[in-house]
Amino acid sequence: MDAVAVDLGGTNLRAARISEDGTILKRAETPTEAQSGVDNVVSRIVGVIREAMGGDRSSVSGVGVGFAAPLDAEKGVVLQAPNLKGWINIPLGEKLKSALSMPVVVENDANAAALGEFWIGAGKNVQSLVCLTLGTGIGGGVVIGGEIWRGAGFLAGEFGHTVLREEGEACPCGSRGCIERYGSASALQRFARKAIDAHPESLLAKSYADCPDDVSARSVTEHAKQGDEVSLDLLRDHGKVLGIAAANVANFLNPEVIVFGGGLILAGDLLFGPLQEEYEKRALAAAVSSTRIVKAEVGPDAGLIGAAKALFDRVAGNTLPA
Amino acid sequence: MDAVAVDLGGTNLRAARISEDGTILKRAETPTEAQSGVDNVVSRIVGVIREAMGGDRSSVSGVGVGFAAPLDAEKGVVLQAPNLKGWINIPLGEKLKSALSMPVVVENDANAAALGEFWIGAGKNVQSLVCLTLGTGIGGGVVIGGEIWRGAGFLAGEFGHTVLREEGEACPCGSRGCIERYGSASALQRFARKAIDAHPESLLAKSYADCPDDVSARSVTEHAKQGDEVSLDLLRDHGKVLGIAAANVANFLNPEVIVFGGGLILAGDLLFGPLQEEYEKRALAAAVSSTRIVKAEVGPDAGLIGAAKALFDRVAGNTLPA
Repeated sequence: MDAVAVDLGGTNLRAARISEDGTILKRAETPTEAQSGVDNVVSRIVGVIREAMGGDRSSVSGVGVGFAAPLDAEKGVVLQAPNLKGWINIPLGEKLKSALSMPVVVENDANAAALGEFWIGAGKNVQSLVCLTLGTGIGGGVVIGGEIWRGAGFLAGEFGHTVLREEGEACPCGSRGCIERYGSASALQRFARKAIDAHPESLLAKSYADCPDDVSARSVTEHAKQGDEVSLDLLRDHGKVLGIAAANVANFLNPEVIVFGGGLILAGDLLFGPLQEEYEKRALAAAVSSTRIVKAEVGPDAGLIGAAKALFDRVAGNTLPA
Repeated sequence: MDAVAVDLGGTNLRAARISEDGTILKRAETPTEAQSGVDNVVSRIVGVIREAMGGDRSSVSGVGVGFAAPLDAEKGVVLQAPNLKGWINIPLGEKLKSALSMPVVVENDANAAALGEFWIGAGKNVQSLVCLTLGTGIGGGVVIGGEIWRGAGFLAGEFGHTVLREEGEACPCGSRGCIERYGSASALQRFARKAIDAHPESLLAKSYADCPDDVSARSVTEHAKQGDEVSLDLLRDHGKVLGIAAANVANFLNPEVIVFGGGLILAGDLLFGPLQEEYEKRALAAAVSSTRIVKAEVGPDAGLIGAAKALFDRVAGNTLPA
């Protein structure tokens, strides 16, 4: 049996039909139209699911939706969606189930990414992992004893909002010095803008002389690969912060692997070299020898793959929402 | 059936016969003689176990030992004991089993304390908790899905060695700015010495005018209760650090409860007031509403009680060491 997985983003809706071994069989994509209201977005989701499902509906077990919002994964209720208008306490699972007449599960996107890596990616041979995805923030997913740990209030994994610098920068979450203020892809972009101001002679500054605000985390990586010292320093400092993040995870939870994901990992050793070095300096020796740092393997489809896995698991465990 | 539990400390060996509902039936205690070598300490442990067991051996299921050392809890092997001479890769479980002819399990003391609170204390009605014991360091134990999570290398729970201040004080573990440098009972004692120097007019300084090094975490609490401003400030600052610690735990793992233990909790609201306030400021709203901060209820016997629980669990689950 296959599953249809949906990645519900603020801009785009991506869907895929996925087999029980994690192979993507068919894809579909459409704009989310996030501001058009709940009912319209739900119809658009139904549409993209039907498109990805294709003709043979009889061999589809159900639908798994990954969504970047706090949600009750047991019941399939979105508690509050920061980027979608009017999404407060929306029973998304129920709505989709009644439109499609098939089982639907809804999973937090960071948990879905962790499940994807656990299933067929960097965590496929382990029973415990923490997956940290570097993007606008730092998304986190925790797998322990072969199962995703969602937390008492479906909030587990918000590692990005643990404090690295007690009196650091204010964070929109209300705290200060959260680690995602220093280690996310957005943070790298912010630091790059400052570096452009401070080092107008650098290759990076010259490339963005007319548009310093357009500098991206990816362009820092590209310039570092061309040998730009400023970009290399930016990645080194970033790796150091993420090495401390890894040490905190390893000392506290000691999972078999810590998986780093997100486009930033394309920086390769320029990021992971300093990261590993700082990790070994900061973590307890017994943690370093039992918790490995690895790069995500599934890539941008991890959320889709993991949403399918969430569906398969709950069909197999007979724990689908009522 | 009962269990005999042992708390193996660097100074004293405490043992107790404990019933299946967690009642302590009989106690025994003797000096550890930590420097006398492995074999002598093992005989002393056997002796204190026999004393606590008393005459009726037929209704004892086995022995649970709690020990403040990194250890392989599955096999009962002590990897390295910082406070006991010559304890490197010692198969303590096996040695005791062959001396006593009964099942023996060995558990890290912080995990044992967490199990004790989970079984009959502050966590008795939950399925997930993190227990932080404030002592020389900050011991940590993690229960998820009703089971202790020991980590891939039996290191989980070393929350005391997560970084709070990136460039903070050097820690003997090799890192810097570890949270136990700021939040343990020892840290409070250290801060109290500094406060005595800085505020010779305070009640605290006057009490320790001749022996400032003798000030203890407990005396800070006592002076705070008498209204000494310096002592009140010390507890307030300490509560603030522990509030951040709690926020980090809640945002990352979102357990049902975070249990604080150790003698320091006798400070009551003078510590827990500022702690709760900082927690609510720092943690995500959904974390605050689903993760409660509570005081340990079992007290200094939590390690003994938890070691007994570890034995009962492994007898019931048929997972005793070979």
